[in-house]
Amino acid sequence: MVHVIDIADPSDPRLDDYRDLNSSDRRPDLPEGKGLVIAEGVLVAQRMLASRFSPISLLGVDRRLGELSEDLTEVDVPFYRTSAEVMAEVVGFHLNRGVLAAAHRPPVLDLEDVLREARTVAILEGVNDHENIGSMFRNAAGLGADAILFGAACADPLYRRAVRVSMGHVLRVPFARVPDWPRGLNVLRDRGFQLISLTPNPTAVPLAHAMTGEKVAVLLGAEGPGLTEHAMRATDVRARIPMAPGTDSLNVSTAAAMAFYERTRTAP
Amino acid sequence: MVHVIDIADPSDPRLDDYRDLNSSDRRPDLPEGKGLVIAEGVLVAQRMLASRFSPISLLGVDRRLGELSEDLTEVDVPFYRTSAEVMAEVVGFHLNRGVLAAAHRPPVLDLEDVLREARTVAILEGVNDHENIGSMFRNAAGLGADAILFGAACADPLYRRAVRVSMGHVLRVPFARVPDWPRGLNVLRDRGFQLISLTPNPTAVPLAHAMTGEKVAVLLGAEGPGLTEHAMRATDVRARIPMAPGTDSLNVSTAAAMAFYERTRTAP
Repeated sequence: MVHVIDIADPSDPRLDDYRDLNSSDRRPDLPEGKGLVIAEGVLVAQRMLASRFSPISLLGVDRRLGELSEDLTEVDVPFYRTSAEVMAEVVGFHLNRGVLAAAHRPPVLDLEDVLREARTVAILEGVNDHENIGSMFRNAAGLGADAILFGAACADPLYRRAVRVSMGHVLRVPFARVPDWPRGLNVLRDRGFQLISLTPNPTAVPLAHAMTGEKVAVLLGAEGPGLTEHAMRATDVRARIPMAPGTDSLNVSTAAAMAFYERTRTAP
Repeated sequence: MVHVIDIADPSDPRLDDYRDLNSSDRRPDLPEGKGLVIAEGVLVAQRMLASRFSPISLLGVDRRLGELSEDLTEVDVPFYRTSAEVMAEVVGFHLNRGVLAAAHRPPVLDLEDVLREARTVAILEGVNDHENIGSMFRNAAGLGADAILFGAACADPLYRRAVRVSMGHVLRVPFARVPDWPRGLNVLRDRGFQLISLTPNPTAVPLAHAMTGEKVAVLLGAEGPGLTEHAMRATDVRARIPMAPGTDSLNVSTAAAMAFYERTRTAP
């Protein structure tokens, strides 16, 4: 069971891991200078507690402690119990979810391990928006994709906003980096993945026809620039989602959702 | 051509339509007490200028006036030219898009008119989040859905944030209200639409099998509560997007995107 510790003083140093959360993604005192992984709210805290991200402490109001009691029976860390007002002063803004959990970043997963059982993965290049990354993980979890892989120039999936928007699924859906981008895509090819570039280019093959592999990896770039030509050349086929003329490309996490959906529809 | 009027004083009453935009959705002086329709940025202003929403004025910095010059040649309204600092003071926050256009709300479209040529529509019930409504219009435009219809208890699609998130497509994709909810769905049935409720219920029919009509209307409820039983009973079939076990339902605009995508795939 957690040790409940009542704290009334917002300057208490035991709350330092929760201080000024809007800038807490930079932590020069921690490995790589990156902040702790922060879960906000009961649902996301529950998902953290059930994940490989073990909290080092929680901070919250009494009511949330009660709601989490069953999830906390085998957890041996402090729960700093305080008021909503003290929480707001510590984190630097009003937080209406009433509970936070903080975890160290575990070691990055190995690409080969992540791919071992996977049959459907998304690979991102240049996706630097935390909300899009968060939605991507939510959609992957909902539609049964097995992993998200990161090529070059993507935002940190463990940033607080990405964790929140993913509804905690970034803590559950495995992710890894593809090294030596884009040549490292050969690791997937060697494992039998069909590599599909998603592009708005009208000359590309409709997604429903392009997706034929037993194992499939769908590459997605940021809205606007899209995938680099360099990355697309390293794939087997360029596919498009049929779009109405004169419109913009879809949001990248929506495009990914459609690829995952197509996969549930057609997976051999 | 617009009349360019230089304004340096943020208290100038000619800028009143742009004042305190964060609360400008309430305008007791206007019909129904609702605010003007506000387009933010060059792209959305262009879409407004090409729509049935005619601006009554624009406010922006000189550079944006230049970028919009071709779109403004046949527009006979004032363009209030000012600095980024004056704009920020007038609207109440820093706005990095540099131009705004304001339009009166035109008359609501007639449901029968909207349905005349339509083959694919979404119908919303209880969707009260402006960002979700905005994304829904963006997805409808991108994937070629013909209209969005509103049943009970939905948020205002012309609210500033919905317009922005839709990237201006709320000004282009027709929308209308379904009166006498949910009985008014008979108007669609009489016109030959297959009425499909989208639900996470695992006993429902997979969407790919359920969607068989030549004309299709997909009903979507808010995340969490979903559609009311009352509304679902008024439809022909309950359909689900195949979801992974133990996950949440998808975001409502993502679910709509999948229905529109399925439609592009299977429309007879």
